[in-house]
Amino acid sequence: MIGLGTMGRNLLLNLADHGFSVAGYDKDPDKIGLLAKEGAGKPAEGFADLTSFLGSIKTPRAIMMLVPAGPIVDSVIAELEPLLAPGDIIIDGGNSHFTDTERRAKAVEAAGFHFFGMGVSGGEEGARFGPSMMPGGDKEAYAVMQPMFEAIAAQVDGQPCVTYIGPGAAGHFVKMVHNGIEYGLMQLIAETYAVLKTGLGMDNTAIGQVFTKWNEGRLQSFLLDITKDIFGFIAPNTDHLLLDDIKDEARAKGTGKWTSQVAMDLEVPLPTVDTAVAMRDLSKYKALREQLAGIYGPAAGALPVEHEAFLTQLEQAFYFSMVITYSQGMHLLAKASKDYSYELQLAEIAKIWRGGCIIRSGFLNDIFNAYQQAPDLAHLLLDSQVQNLVKESVSGARAVVAAAVTAGLALPAYASSLNYFETFRTGRMPSNLIQAQRDYFGAHTYELIGKEGVFHTQWTPEHEDASNKQDAQVEEGGPEKEPVKPNS
Amino acid sequence: MIGLGTMGRNLLLNLADHGFSVAGYDKDPDKIGLLAKEGAGKPAEGFADLTSFLGSIKTPRAIMMLVPAGPIVDSVIAELEPLLAPGDIIIDGGNSHFTDTERRAKAVEAAGFHFFGMGVSGGEEGARFGPSMMPGGDKEAYAVMQPMFEAIAAQVDGQPCVTYIGPGAAGHFVKMVHNGIEYGLMQLIAETYAVLKTGLGMDNTAIGQVFTKWNEGRLQSFLLDITKDIFGFIAPNTDHLLLDDIKDEARAKGTGKWTSQVAMDLEVPLPTVDTAVAMRDLSKYKALREQLAGIYGPAAGALPVEHEAFLTQLEQAFYFSMVITYSQGMHLLAKASKDYSYELQLAEIAKIWRGGCIIRSGFLNDIFNAYQQAPDLAHLLLDSQVQNLVKESVSGARAVVAAAVTAGLALPAYASSLNYFETFRTGRMPSNLIQAQRDYFGAHTYELIGKEGVFHTQWTPEHEDASNKQDAQVEEGGPEKEPVKPNS
Repeated sequence: MIGLGTMGRNLLLNLADHGFSVAGYDKDPDKIGLLAKEGAGKPAEGFADLTSFLGSIKTPRAIMMLVPAGPIVDSVIAELEPLLAPGDIIIDGGNSHFTDTERRAKAVEAAGFHFFGMGVSGGEEGARFGPSMMPGGDKEAYAVMQPMFEAIAAQVDGQPCVTYIGPGAAGHFVKMVHNGIEYGLMQLIAETYAVLKTGLGMDNTAIGQVFTKWNEGRLQSFLLDITKDIFGFIAPNTDHLLLDDIKDEARAKGTGKWTSQVAMDLEVPLPTVDTAVAMRDLSKYKALREQLAGIYGPAAGALPVEHEAFLTQLEQAFYFSMVITYSQGMHLLAKASKDYSYELQLAEIAKIWRGGCIIRSGFLNDIFNAYQQAPDLAHLLLDSQVQNLVKESVSGARAVVAAAVTAGLALPAYASSLNYFETFRTGRMPSNLIQAQRDYFGAHTYELIGKEGVFHTQWTPEHEDASNKQDAQVEEGGPEKEPVKPNS
Repeated sequence: MIGLGTMGRNLLLNLADHGFSVAGYDKDPDKIGLLAKEGAGKPAEGFADLTSFLGSIKTPRAIMMLVPAGPIVDSVIAELEPLLAPGDIIIDGGNSHFTDTERRAKAVEAAGFHFFGMGVSGGEEGARFGPSMMPGGDKEAYAVMQPMFEAIAAQVDGQPCVTYIGPGAAGHFVKMVHNGIEYGLMQLIAETYAVLKTGLGMDNTAIGQVFTKWNEGRLQSFLLDITKDIFGFIAPNTDHLLLDDIKDEARAKGTGKWTSQVAMDLEVPLPTVDTAVAMRDLSKYKALREQLAGIYGPAAGALPVEHEAFLTQLEQAFYFSMVITYSQGMHLLAKASKDYSYELQLAEIAKIWRGGCIIRSGFLNDIFNAYQQAPDLAHLLLDSQVQNLVKESVSGARAVVAAAVTAGLALPAYASSLNYFETFRTGRMPSNLIQAQRDYFGAHTYELIGKEGVFHTQWTPEHEDASNKQDAQVEEGGPEKEPVKPNS
């Protein structure tokens, strides 16, 4: 293991606990000291020298990196390569951008070594006691590692939460989408907290009880579980929650943003994740928010609703929005699988997400079932079981969002999830107007219902005599796309 | 002019009309024929041979390209460079991604020539009779071109809609954000069409009257103007609008997507544009939408509202959302100006957007005034005049969105605009919970109100005895960010 931060050390200790003899390397002697302390009596040795570290591993070596995504991964690979022997395996277990993984896999393989990128989810606890792992790329190399990974992964119903994801950067891609879903779910939970606190005027104890209760029902999930804990955590030497002392400026490491950006490149709508990313960004403008609160106050207050009935609707709204968030992520995976030839098995992915990872939840069983029955399902909302869940919860979502909107209370991710659904169930969207506008001002052409081809019309009243040109089929794309062909 | 598509030809004819003697080059003889026909009697000559074209221009040559963004721009530059003389100027007038422009400017300047990127907006009509132009980069080269551009630009109050934007790729950046705003406004208009048609059950004539009326008031804008025309355009040889025959699948050329992606990189929330991009993407899943409509029907129907009163609220809602959309774009420009040292003059940008371009509107005068009075205004919503406009229109936005949400009618961009506003006027967001969660599962640390530093807590109940560690200040970023320092 290269990189003995908490994640790296915990994965090593996990491996050692399962009988594997392991070694770790870090430039920082403090980290090596921590490994020695935490791993006392276990077969896990730490090294501050790369050559000694590599000498301690039997060949072909399997070397995993858990270092920050970005240029550091490239530096480590550059440092490693001259010291490796043919057949050695490099595993990038960090949150690398999948395009970097694609590039590195090619370069490392060209240099004669094996490489695969693997997403690891579960945070500190997961790494220590059972993460969910998403390996992709070099299948031969993965086969070598498979017994180790299956031993240390989280287990659900006796099945390890690790499976070969697909070729290329498929593992890191799937981990990225996992994180995108995570952003969406976390934003939804935060908005729920706002509704309970501001909209219903509940205190922290009562709010904690709602999350506890939800987590005991169909909403059971890791994120609600830790939220419940957070609502029980008193700041040391005080009588109030630590939560109340924490600044409301959310940080991010980029995987949610990447998910939204890639979804846009793949032309898959992912508005709940987009919203979660935007709201983390917005939260950082604290001074500006306070200024605008002063100008556009008073702040949203209590909702004029009957609490018990509203809490039932809110549970439905959360359930509905959670289903939508996962649906968006699965849709992105399906599209990426096609466009990048990842050959993703969506049922297998849902299966390994049921344990160990941050987005594990009871609902992943429904997702697993849906794709198990129909591996090529175009969208999760088509599944008959999911249909029932959505149909019985959408009215709650509408009621909650409408109440919040009326009261001036922000529920951006709830609203995005709902509008995604309402738009997707619209057979005839108003987007014909967008096409007409684009053709009007930019001659971008449009398509006609029931008639092949693309068309352009001279819409301006001044040129109405030319309007019958509209039936003339013109080249796809219109003027802006007309290529100037360089010397061919 | 290299590239004699409609935009290129029209800009040449515009220049010729203003007394400039110009030449154009295109590989396609048909385009040259069109230039000869449209430019009969004007000083505008077409060439199919690059060397003859270049020989016809007096040195130092000013050569503008209007070719599709992407690799074609690079091919044209590569083809040009061996034929140029020192001091010649290359102008990329297409919709190039600003990072490409940054790269090309450096390469072309290193080769001894001048280069600048210029955004051109206004579509066909604008190019022909007065566009809005956003040149950036080589200021010396722009000074040479300035008289020509000022002559052909749209004029508002005797002022040309062109100004030097800033160094590097500032011109293309600003044009990209212009297009992002355009996406947002077009989506809002499309949603308005859906409300009028589905929510109020109005026919096309009545809908056209609403847009006509709006365009005569404070909402006056180019996009509403052409929308009004579209609602008056009968499909030839029929008795119904051409609009009704157009497919509801919206296409895109990427500038809106780029705006959203860059905003995420710059950590500026831009949810209305994000939503517009997502909804264009969603519109393309026509078959899936029809399937989901069948499953989750019936479609949204008439809103239980009093029409006249609701139309007043809808006008407010549109006005409000339009203000928010421009605000988001201006916020992104302000952030980019800082991060990229573009030194953007936001008042000047608002000024040149008042004419010629697609997002020109009466409201741009308000934006101009705001930044004229306070060039460093942190956000448009802080301006006192804009405050009044927003305060008097937000209730309409809340009423319209709430009514649509209740009825199951999709209004995603309206809802995103409203939730952006409601969140931005929230002094205390629920994002403290997101920080607590991140620290809980990933040791990502959090910040405390009124206390410097970043903190990490062991939140899990199993480790409660360690909970008083929470006051221990740990390194910024937590474990995942702990760098493994390669050989230093």
